[in-house]
Amino acid sequence: MELKKPYYAVIFTNTRTPGDNGYSETAIKMEKLAREQPGFLDFESARSGLGIAISYWESQEAIVNWKANLEHLTAQDRGVKEWYSWYKVRVCVVEREYDFGQKPSM
Amino acid sequence: MELKKPYYAVIFTNTRTPGDNGYSETAIKMEKLAREQPGFLDFESARSGLGIAISYWESQEAIVNWKANLEHLTAQDRGVKEWYSWYKVRVCVVEREYDFGQKPSM
Repeated sequence: MELKKPYYAVIFTNTRTPGDNGYSETAIKMEKLAREQPGFLDFESARSGLGIAISYWESQEAIVNWKANLEHLTAQDRGVKEWYSWYKVRVCVVEREYDFGQKPSM
Repeated sequence: MELKKPYYAVIFTNTRTPGDNGYSETAIKMEKLAREQPGFLDFESARSGLGIAISYWESQEAIVNWKANLEHLTAQDRGVKEWYSWYKVRVCVVEREYDFGQKPSM
């Protein structure tokens, strides 16, 4: 339950503007790109009205580098201008965890 | 962006078993009950295949008390036996945050 080495979670909670406007394509591309970054650990997302996307990282440095990634900066810019009516980003340290059952491949 | 006082996030990621089996009613009841607990700050949830529910708390003590709440213990028991095929719980410290736009009332 206690972690040998704490890791980081970036919780991105958001609401969308109406229409797709290229959002879905970019969201897929950004998840793929995030997964290729140094220090990336995992990604989880769900939406039902409210959207929640959480990325997990080995270090604060990995998070800072991902935020500054050029393609990601372009996406963040379109996010503010076109895709999101509201969002909140929380950077967290994961201190303990436990699970149940077998994780499905999604 | 830096917080005056760090707070806590409990990230509950899960996949459901088929059928409702009383899940929806209990989920609504548990959110209502959580919101009444000392130290409760906020609750966010979404589901699209994967379910993500995040509760925010003032302290570790508040999280421990909520986990030990009797009605919540009964719900946790049914969760393992009936509702979830998999879940993972992560207890996190929120270290910094920023937002954009006007939060909608949902």
